[in-house]
Formats: sequence, structure tokens, C-alpha cells
Amino acid sequence: MPKIDFRQIFNESFGMVRHLLRWIPLACYVGIAAGTASAILLASLTYATNLRESHIWLILLLAPMGWLMGLMYRHFGKSVEGGNNLILEQIHNPKDVIPFRMTPLILIGTFLTHVFGGSAGREGTAVQTGASLADQLTRPLRLSPQNRRILLMTGVSAGFGSVFGTPLAGGVFGMEVLAIGAIGYDAIAPCFLAAFVGDLVTRAWEPVIPGIRHTVYTVSEVPSLNVRTILYASIAGVLFGLVAMLFARTTHAIASTMRRLIHRTELRPVVGGLLVTVTVFGIGYAHTSKYLGLGIPTIVAAFHTHLPFYDFAAKLVLTAVTLGTGFKGGEVTPLFFIGATMGNALSSIIPLPSSLLAGMGFVAVFAGAANTPLASTLMAMELFGAEAGAYAAIACILSYLFSGHNGIYHAQRVQSSKY
Amino acid sequence: MPKIDFRQIFNESFGMVRHLLRWIPLACYVGIAAGTASAILLASLTYATNLRESHIWLILLLAPMGWLMGLMYRHFGKSVEGGNNLILEQIHNPKDVIPFRMTPLILIGTFLTHVFGGSAGREGTAVQTGASLADQLTRPLRLSPQNRRILLMTGVSAGFGSVFGTPLAGGVFGMEVLAIGAIGYDAIAPCFLAAFVGDLVTRAWEPVIPGIRHTVYTVSEVPSLNVRTILYASIAGVLFGLVAMLFARTTHAIASTMRRLIHRTELRPVVGGLLVTVTVFGIGYAHTSKYLGLGIPTIVAAFHTHLPFYDFAAKLVLTAVTLGTGFKGGEVTPLFFIGATMGNALSSIIPLPSSLLAGMGFVAVFAGAANTPLASTLMAMELFGAEAGAYAAIACILSYLFSGHNGIYHAQRVQSSKY
Repeated sequence: MPKIDFRQIFNESFGMVRHLLRWIPLACYVGIAAGTASAILLASLTYATNLRESHIWLILLLAPMGWLMGLMYRHFGKSVEGGNNLILEQIHNPKDVIPFRMTPLILIGTFLTHVFGGSAGREGTAVQTGASLADQLTRPLRLSPQNRRILLMTGVSAGFGSVFGTPLAGGVFGMEVLAIGAIGYDAIAPCFLAAFVGDLVTRAWEPVIPGIRHTVYTVSEVPSLNVRTILYASIAGVLFGLVAMLFARTTHAIASTMRRLIHRTELRPVVGGLLVTVTVFGIGYAHTSKYLGLGIPTIVAAFHTHLPFYDFAAKLVLTAVTLGTGFKGGEVTPLFFIGATMGNALSSIIPLPSSLLAGMGFVAVFAGAANTPLASTLMAMELFGAEAGAYAAIACILSYLFSGHNGIYHAQRVQSSKY
Repeated sequence: MPKIDFRQIFNESFGMVRHLLRWIPLACYVGIAAGTASAILLASLTYATNLRESHIWLILLLAPMGWLMGLMYRHFGKSVEGGNNLILEQIHNPKDVIPFRMTPLILIGTFLTHVFGGSAGREGTAVQTGASLADQLTRPLRLSPQNRRILLMTGVSAGFGSVFGTPLAGGVFGMEVLAIGAIGYDAIAPCFLAAFVGDLVTRAWEPVIPGIRHTVYTVSEVPSLNVRTILYASIAGVLFGLVAMLFARTTHAIASTMRRLIHRTELRPVVGGLLVTVTVFGIGYAHTSKYLGLGIPTIVAAFHTHLPFYDFAAKLVLTAVTLGTGFKGGEVTPLFFIGATMGNALSSIIPLPSSLLAGMGFVAVFAGAANTPLASTLMAMELFGAEAGAYAAIACILSYLFSGHNGIYHAQRVQSSKY
């Protein structure tokens, strides 16, 4: 009779059960903490956006507010200034626990940036709150460096999954963002569990805290794939990737110029704030207001109306100035804006439906800038439906390939070259 | 002014264009070759199934046919007997080009297995035709070992994506199946391109060759996620994983027992053929016929009717006997059968919709046995829609975690332990 080693089967299962008994409570804690932080973040951004739009003069205060925020980070936030890069560095090379203060500082910084009209996003904030709240367990539980690494990855996944309402993309993002060109599965269960719990928790806060609801984007038409449409999607993907590279490099170039020219960190956002304010009121608030803050209404519009072709460029510049000079917030929602409006613009030269191109751009510019093609493809399927998945995958992969090796996170390692 | 190094941007883009100029024609060739082979395979299996079902006595010839097939492989197929494992070995450690004869031999072997009533699948066949047809380019183009490795991966992706009509799952499968616990992106563009082209080519043959059409499976109800449903999905996932492990181990145990007891390779399928024939007619054709061949009608039924709880076990045993004794074909469609019927059976004890459990089992038992949780999740979204994606991901990841470190492909490397 054929023999099956049931003892080995038992041992393997037992090892896995032990692994999960450790990680299920930890991932649930991380999910609850990160999901709650994301709920607070989303609600605060809704409030900030409403406040700014009903008191336009607030934008005049962007420069002085930048100064205050710079002072705040200079006095209390030196240890957490690195933001997302600090988290990636700690995952690669675990040393110091990320201070709890990262959470309130980044929440306040992001809120101020959005109230006073900076152009920024939220995933950076969610990832930072998720990871810093997760890391608070490291000392009490005396986690080994290896386990701390997994814990930080769960924080990234939970933050990302909960702030966008896309747990599958969140689960993969936490594993994929660490390095270019490779992904390891050792944290797969904790990352996904934390992302699912985080998403549920953020949604559970919806009836309690006003202003949390996730936006719905609709790709209204997906043609069937053929050689022609694959080719069109590929061309769009290459262009999305080049713009992703341009965004990352412009932001880095502004940041390094600031570092070179302005020694006092708290004065850098003053310059950025002045540039944004002068641009907004110089050109006219009516024409520029849509580039401030998250810009959700314009992202939604990109899926169903024709927008000016230069929208993506304007958003790119204003976001690079805002973030490059030290304001707080994420890159990803601006990347969604840049991608969706660029897809909308491309629909006049690429014969694919404009809502599909907007959806492809939405995820693909992000895929190229963050070097996360699989998380972005999953995000497209979660947000726009499975039918859009193939087009999104083509655009995300080509954008990833053409965005170069320096994405928005400079602490991301290059595990293997893209070509 | 901030400086952006446009020369470096140009260089990076140029490197990528050069990479793609090499791989676009190669991946297209692989896609066309593998897609055509998959079309022939699908049509031949439809023909084989119809033939067997209208001439039940053919099953009596399974043992002698096994002997003939064994002789055929002994005389002409020594170099390609390794099948899928041979391909994985060549990807890990590129040495000898895979002979072209792998393609006709595996197509004929699979056809004979299905005509005479063996229980087997088709992905193994598609992967082998894809990779061996791809590898024919290695010598004429004098590809380096590194490029040959990528070429073989494109063959795997194209074969898998085209035979199931799921290019996203195919693209990831070619990268994910090589090793447990890690995935590299160096072949991402060629793998996805070949999978897309392969899928298009198989579909393009549909009007020309009868019997190619892909089956549609319908998950009719997906409840919203909450703590309870996540828990249910997790329990199901663990059970799917244990059954995946049981399948892999039973098949390996039968194969190693055969190797120990029966020295002449061509006599092993005779034993398997006799076992299957005696079982089928001993219990009665009416009760057992659904376990023979691919078993597509039963897989479809698992999504909408209540099936006997033992269906999955019967299919597991018959497939392990068929493949473990040396008949040809794949493991994956039987794994879909085992998973879908097991999910159907679980619906009497797990309070989730039975069509959802069938869909989860369909992909999750495969995810556990092949150690490909991401490809399987994408497959679920491609086949059942994005709504089922979260449940499929939970089931696939837990199945992957609980299926141990010895999947159906023993040439798969363990890159990092699962726990």
C-alpha cells in the first residue's frame, strides 16, 4: 500500500497553527488600530476639504501654516520626519521602534496641509499611522527583528487597505512596496488579515463619524481584448509610466533643491506655500481650486466627462511643490488624479473608452511611481470590476517597466533590475 | 531651479525599449504556439469526452491503452517523461533544451488518457506544450541561460493562460509556480504578454475548430464581508489546504510505490488502468462516470445543485491512481473538481452560499496544491467576478499555508518556509 506520512502532515499543520496563533491577534490589533486611524483621517480630510472650500481665504495662510508645521516637526518630529521611507528602512533593517508620535504628527500635518490648500494625498498618512501604531507592540511583546519586520508590513497593508477600501490591494501592497522586482510571501497571512480587518473597521466607523465614505468610480465600458486594444493599452501604459517617473523625479528634485538652498527645515514649506498660493490666486481660484487637496471630484469627473488636457500636468506640479517642500500627506491620491485625468486626456488620441483610460491611468501612474504593479492591478479589479482587470494589468505592468528605478519611495530596494 | 536628469530618464527608457524589442516577438511567438496547442488540446478533449461517453466499453481498454502509452513514452519519451517537473528544473537550472517531441507525446498521451476513462486534467499538458514549443527557439537564437529561463516561463504562462482563458492568472502563474514563498518580476512583461496572446489565439481558433469553448462558472451570491464570514472563509480555506496536501501526497505515494514495486515503466499504467476500470464497473458506471476525464459537468453542477458529499474524495482517489501510475494529463482540472465539489459539500456545515464555497474551493485546492495563491486569486476574479475576490483570497491564502511544503510539483523550490 502507498504510505502517506501522517505525522509529517500533522507537524506541518501544527507549525502553521502556531504561526497563526501568534499572528491572528497581532494582525487584528493592527487592523483595528490602523482602520480607526484611517477613519479619523478620512473624516478629517472631508472636514478639511469642506472648510477650505467654504473659506477660500484660508489658502492665503498656507505659507505661514507651513512654517508652523515645519516648526512642529522640527521640535517634536525629528525622529519621524522620514515618513514612509523611515518605515521601509525599518522593515529592511530593523533598528529603532517607530515612535508613537508619528501618528498624531502625520494626522495633524496632513489635516493642515489639506485645510490650507496644499495638493497632497492620504495613503502616506495611512501607511505611517498603520505602521507606527503597529510598531508600538514591538517593545511590550519583545518581538524579534524578523517578527517586527512582519508587524510593520501588516501596518502598511492595514493602512493602505483601509484608507482606500481595497483590502486585496492593501494585502499585496505591504509585501510589494518593499523592493523593486521581487515579493516574498512570509508575511502573506498577517498582511491580508490586517488589511481585511482594517477595511472592516474603517467601514464600521462610517455610521459613527461623518465623512468617511469611500468614493465609487465607474468604468462604464470595457471593450473585448484584441491585438489592437492590447497595443493601445500598452501605449497608454508606457505614457503613464513616463509621467510616474516625471512625478517622482520632480518631487525629489524639488526636495533636494530645497535641502541645498534652505538650511532651516521650517522655512521650506513656506516657500512651497507661497508658490502654491501665488499660483492659485495669480491664475485665479476658479481655474486652480480643483488641483488643491485630494481633488476627488475631478478624479470622479475624469471617468465620465471630458476634462482639459493639462489637468494632469497642473496637478503634478502643484503636488510636487507641496510635498517636495515638506508639507504632509500622501502621494497616491494625487497620482490617482494625475493618472485619471491623463487617461481622460489620452482618450482624444487613443481609441479606447475614456472611462476605461481614466481607470487605467488611476492605477497605472500609481503602479509606476510606487513600483507595485500587482497591488495596482488588484486595486483596479476591486474598484472598477474584474472586466477592467486585463487592461489595468497591461497599463500597470508597462507603467512599472517605464518608470525607472527611482520611485516615490527612495528607501525601496532594487531587488532585481527591471530589464 | 530643481534639476531633473533627462539623460538618465532617456537611458532607462531606452534600456527598457531594448528589453521589450527582444521579448515582444518572442512572447508573441510563444503565445501563438501555445495558444494553438491549447486549442488543439481543448478540441481533442471535447472529442475524447464525447467518444468515451458514447462508447462506454472504451473504458475496458484503459489498462491495455496504458500499456501502449507506457511503451510509447519508454521508446520515444524518456527525455520528456519528467513533464512539468522537467520544465521547472530547466527554469531553475537551465541545461538541455526540452525536445520538441514533448508536445506531440503529451497531447497524444492526454488524449488517450481521456478517451479511455482516466481521471486527469489539462493544465499539465498545456504547460508542457507551451514550454517545449517555446524552448525550440533557444538553439536557433542562441539564448543565454538567463533568457532561456524567461522564455520557459513565458511558455508556462501562455499554456496556462490559454487553456483556462484566464490570462492574468496565467501571467502570474508562470512567475509564481517556480518557488514556494517568493516571486520575481524579471519575466513579468514576457509572461503577461505571452498569456494574453495565448488566450487570444485559443479564442481565435474557436470558430475554426469545434469544441474549444471555455466553460462559464457562476458564483450567484456573494455576501458582504464581516468578521463572521471571514472566519467561515478561513475555516474552509484550511480544509481546502489539507485536502490539497492529501491529494499531492497520495499521488506522490502511489507514484513512489509504483516505482518500487514495478520496474517496467510501461506496466505501471496497466495497474492504474485496471484499478480504475474495476472500480468503475464494480461500483457501476452510472455512479462513477462523473469522476472520469475532466468532469466539467460536475464542476458546473457544484455551483448550483447539491452534490453527494463524497464526490471530492472519489475524484481525489481516482485522479491520484490515474496520474500516480503514469497516465498523462494535468492535475489542475481534477483539483478544480475536488475543490468545487468539496466546497459544495461544506455548504451543509459552513453557512456561506454554496456557489461561493464551490468557487472558493475551485481555486483554493489548486492554490494549495500548486502553491500559487496570487495566481489562484486572480483566476477567481477572472472567472467569477471581482466580488468573489476577497473570499477567494482568504481561502487561497489559508489553503496555501496549510498545504505543506510538498505540492504537486516536486521540482518547485522552497524559497522561504511558509511559517
